[in-house]
Amino acid sequence: MATILRLFLAQVNATVGDIRGNYKLISGYVKEARESGSDLVIFPELVLTGYPPEDLLLKTAFIDENLKYIEKLKSVAPDIIVIAGFADSREGSIFNSAAVIYNNRIWPVYHKQRLPNYSVFDEERYFRKGETDYIFKIANNLVGLNICEDIFYANGPATVQSIEGCADLIINISASPYHTGKIDEREKMLATRAYDNRVNIAYVNLVGGQDELIFDGNSLILDEKGSIVARCRPFREDFIIRDIDPGGVAEARLKDSRFRIQKHGMKEAGNRIEVVDLDYKKNTALLKRCCPYRAPNNKTGTKLLKYSNFISCPEEEILEALMLGTRDYIFKNGFKKAVVALSGGIDSALVTTIASLAIGRENITAVLMPSCFSSSECIEDSFTLVGNLKINHMVIPITEIFESYLKNLKSLFKDVEINLTKENIQARIRGNIIMAVSNEKGWLVLSTGNKSEISVGYCTLYGDMAGGFSPIKDIYKTTVYSICRFINKKYNNIIPESIIARAPSAELKPGQKDRDSLPPYDILDRILFCYIEEDRSYNSIVGMGFDPVMVRDVINMVDRSEYKRRQASPGVKISARAFGKDRRYPVTSKFKLQ
Amino acid sequence: MATILRLFLAQVNATVGDIRGNYKLISGYVKEARESGSDLVIFPELVLTGYPPEDLLLKTAFIDENLKYIEKLKSVAPDIIVIAGFADSREGSIFNSAAVIYNNRIWPVYHKQRLPNYSVFDEERYFRKGETDYIFKIANNLVGLNICEDIFYANGPATVQSIEGCADLIINISASPYHTGKIDEREKMLATRAYDNRVNIAYVNLVGGQDELIFDGNSLILDEKGSIVARCRPFREDFIIRDIDPGGVAEARLKDSRFRIQKHGMKEAGNRIEVVDLDYKKNTALLKRCCPYRAPNNKTGTKLLKYSNFISCPEEEILEALMLGTRDYIFKNGFKKAVVALSGGIDSALVTTIASLAIGRENITAVLMPSCFSSSECIEDSFTLVGNLKINHMVIPITEIFESYLKNLKSLFKDVEINLTKENIQARIRGNIIMAVSNEKGWLVLSTGNKSEISVGYCTLYGDMAGGFSPIKDIYKTTVYSICRFINKKYNNIIPESIIARAPSAELKPGQKDRDSLPPYDILDRILFCYIEEDRSYNSIVGMGFDPVMVRDVINMVDRSEYKRRQASPGVKISARAFGKDRRYPVTSKFKLQ
Repeated sequence: MATILRLFLAQVNATVGDIRGNYKLISGYVKEARESGSDLVIFPELVLTGYPPEDLLLKTAFIDENLKYIEKLKSVAPDIIVIAGFADSREGSIFNSAAVIYNNRIWPVYHKQRLPNYSVFDEERYFRKGETDYIFKIANNLVGLNICEDIFYANGPATVQSIEGCADLIINISASPYHTGKIDEREKMLATRAYDNRVNIAYVNLVGGQDELIFDGNSLILDEKGSIVARCRPFREDFIIRDIDPGGVAEARLKDSRFRIQKHGMKEAGNRIEVVDLDYKKNTALLKRCCPYRAPNNKTGTKLLKYSNFISCPEEEILEALMLGTRDYIFKNGFKKAVVALSGGIDSALVTTIASLAIGRENITAVLMPSCFSSSECIEDSFTLVGNLKINHMVIPITEIFESYLKNLKSLFKDVEINLTKENIQARIRGNIIMAVSNEKGWLVLSTGNKSEISVGYCTLYGDMAGGFSPIKDIYKTTVYSICRFINKKYNNIIPESIIARAPSAELKPGQKDRDSLPPYDILDRILFCYIEEDRSYNSIVGMGFDPVMVRDVINMVDRSEYKRRQASPGVKISARAFGKDRRYPVTSKFKLQ
Repeated sequence: MATILRLFLAQVNATVGDIRGNYKLISGYVKEARESGSDLVIFPELVLTGYPPEDLLLKTAFIDENLKYIEKLKSVAPDIIVIAGFADSREGSIFNSAAVIYNNRIWPVYHKQRLPNYSVFDEERYFRKGETDYIFKIANNLVGLNICEDIFYANGPATVQSIEGCADLIINISASPYHTGKIDEREKMLATRAYDNRVNIAYVNLVGGQDELIFDGNSLILDEKGSIVARCRPFREDFIIRDIDPGGVAEARLKDSRFRIQKHGMKEAGNRIEVVDLDYKKNTALLKRCCPYRAPNNKTGTKLLKYSNFISCPEEEILEALMLGTRDYIFKNGFKKAVVALSGGIDSALVTTIASLAIGRENITAVLMPSCFSSSECIEDSFTLVGNLKINHMVIPITEIFESYLKNLKSLFKDVEINLTKENIQARIRGNIIMAVSNEKGWLVLSTGNKSEISVGYCTLYGDMAGGFSPIKDIYKTTVYSICRFINKKYNNIIPESIIARAPSAELKPGQKDRDSLPPYDILDRILFCYIEEDRSYNSIVGMGFDPVMVRDVINMVDRSEYKRRQASPGVKISARAFGKDRRYPVTSKFKLQ
């Protein structure tokens, strides 16, 4: 008869390449899990190396160090089962792997079988596919172990382990990146997998930011009915402690003819499934220790016995993702402070606010760089925002420097009017100044471009695009507005209403407005979504009722701006199709609208 | 009895996305091949779409257009067999494919079986693997067809087609990118494959530049002894017309026990190989047409009956690659002219010279931007080079603009001395000016950084790194010198000797020399090669005898500069490991030297 198992799901924020640091993080949680009387403590995919390690995986020194530390984990707590992701090396190949560590040894290592190689993923570049399904027998419980993508397929390892291998519990360790809608998709998939296979699922996802990617956490425990019975908080380190009673699985399977011939054994498992008996019965003392559940600990985690989403609306979810991505990029790259060029427009107001919320108001400086084209309203609003956020600021006017350029470049220009070249010169003066502040102070520059303008190239390379990280790079302008409104609701109108109300302008020439160069943002963003996220053709978008000339212009602008995006700083991926690793376009391309 | 076949190898320069343009290019060669009395005309891998089309392959409109034009090829010349690469679509999957077009129909399409997903390649991202080997029977000749990577494996399709399928001739269509040493490697591999399988090989490679990549051409015909009997010129469009007599194959196989039981038929081919009879005998009239070989045509191609490498030394090969890459990037992106910031240093001198050779002296402008730190020698040398190359130039001094920055940023600096921040301000003023020239004139900016400085970050983001394309981005400083010396030998000392002789300096503060911040370039470049190209660890490099402190400093500089490279412009890949798609490193990484 299977016994109750106490699980500890450790939703940790590992750092790519920081193998020693990740080892320490893991060890700390192992000790905590042991104290809580847990039988198993489970960590995310590739937790030891961080995810994705990219071409670090091609260095033998990197692989060797990760192997050294997975060995070290054996002795941290021999009387608890530790499951942790690492990069295994066998027969000259590297595998995306899960180690089962218990009683001073590493038990057979599971190798991921489904390697994603689409969207932001390049796993076929690094890893060989695993070929074996394991069932671990833990005090008469049958536990199937698999990794991330493995569980996304209805006919994948989770199903083989459940139906052929009779697993009561499936453990999936993941590093599943966030985009809007993904949390819900993933939950539905896991619920379906649990229900279809009449199995408990413990899903442990990574949390944290890594360059473009956000891992949202949202680790879950589901029962054999597909109900979520516990959940880690999203976008932060957290843990769950929960007892799993396999009785429900046995009962559900009695009513399911697919399981009728099993009788607590293996049903025609064949050679594909290997059963590993962890001989855990000798340690039933541990199972009987039966500590009470720990009280929720607000600092490092909490247990949740009831479903709760924690997130009130899509804007809050996106804001949390942006804050986590910005904070982790800054701190994991060794910066303590950041700087933003504040124009009085909505984009820089949002980025400044996000940064202030993410890393603390004392760590953010706003730089105001007014020119002769800056309106007094914008300057005033900038000061108001600085005051509301209680952040430091500097004012460095650019008029005199701009005049000095115009004087020295006189021979280049036919007349004195402001044209696109002169607009770009101003933007690049600001880029130069903000980088000088960054160089002198050691602060990271956050650039302020949104997805709408980066899509159509309504931004200046080396000007407003200058910076180390772009928090709102994947946020369309219309979403910029809705997030600002959400922030004002939650944080007492911290962003001056006039910033939100004013018609957008780059203020690089007299009377300039975005709407003179671009379609209205509500239309532009819908066309962009169709073209970028959905890969729709010109004909298909026009067929939806948009103005053909406008669609043609927008597509042309997107295609022509690829060279700018190639030199843009990384930013937080929020959408199902972000620029960067997610959309690999040639710069040189003569493919024209269809 | 097999008949003599006349082959036409069309080594063309296709453009990514320009399906209509590529179709026209193909049609032109098909007509030319027909006039030459050829039986088959063969084009490179994915010639219709250009290579690599990257995420354009995820657009149905793109796939559909390529299918439309492969259909159109049927009617161009029904009495010659056309073999051309395209993206086939079957059962919801896309295949990297070769069409065999003859007699107004497309015969069974070959689907590439080995999909490269390492280095710069992402083919698993887009394509499904093919599973069938074909043998095409053409007037009693057995012809095996495969695609690029397929032939790189000793046990791959070429061998199956030859040994099991009895092919007399293997046709391999390729888009195989260049790096130094690759031409020789590829030749040796093809010679081995031909000899091992006692088979003729017709290898047709793409030529041209596409973003980072150069396709070098070097299309070849090899006989069953593994000897190269004809070769297209490298780094330009070219063609070969040659008669293939399968008699040699039959004779060689009589002496080889592996082929003893064949007797001009299929030996235990099993289900894997499908034989397609093109019924070509009905058209023996064509085979008897027997045109004389065409005289060499300097404009579009030449035939070569004897082996010749065309290239005198590695420096010439690299120079040809750089010229092709630079020319194709400029012209394929719709630019007519380019501009370079000429400092008087060796890097900008080399880039200006390459550009002038690549796109014509009348299309290049040099911009001199002297500061108070510019030496009179550098300024003089710049004028001498401009005179030698007979190119246009502009002079725009930056001193006054720099002073204007210093005045407006006074509060930022503790003292008046030039520090790194102030050096960067100067570099970014030049970046702003060269971009203004580009914006105003519509010229592409070529940036001048070499691989040594981009590796260690000895360059200014948005400053000297500003630009659309970096011709020498993958050339170490020591190679910069050897290419300059080669150019001076070939082009009558066009680069002033004093530029080559002078100790390198950024001239951003008084008396500055590269050697004050960096190890000597001959040592630096060797350490960089070990770390970047060979992925060696710190311990391994120190073990080779280099100074441990120097190795540590260099590795740290390389690792810390990833964020700069992420925002660098693309450049020509020359090495086996270039920055860009070829080396995918996380910016956020705490992996430390071992």
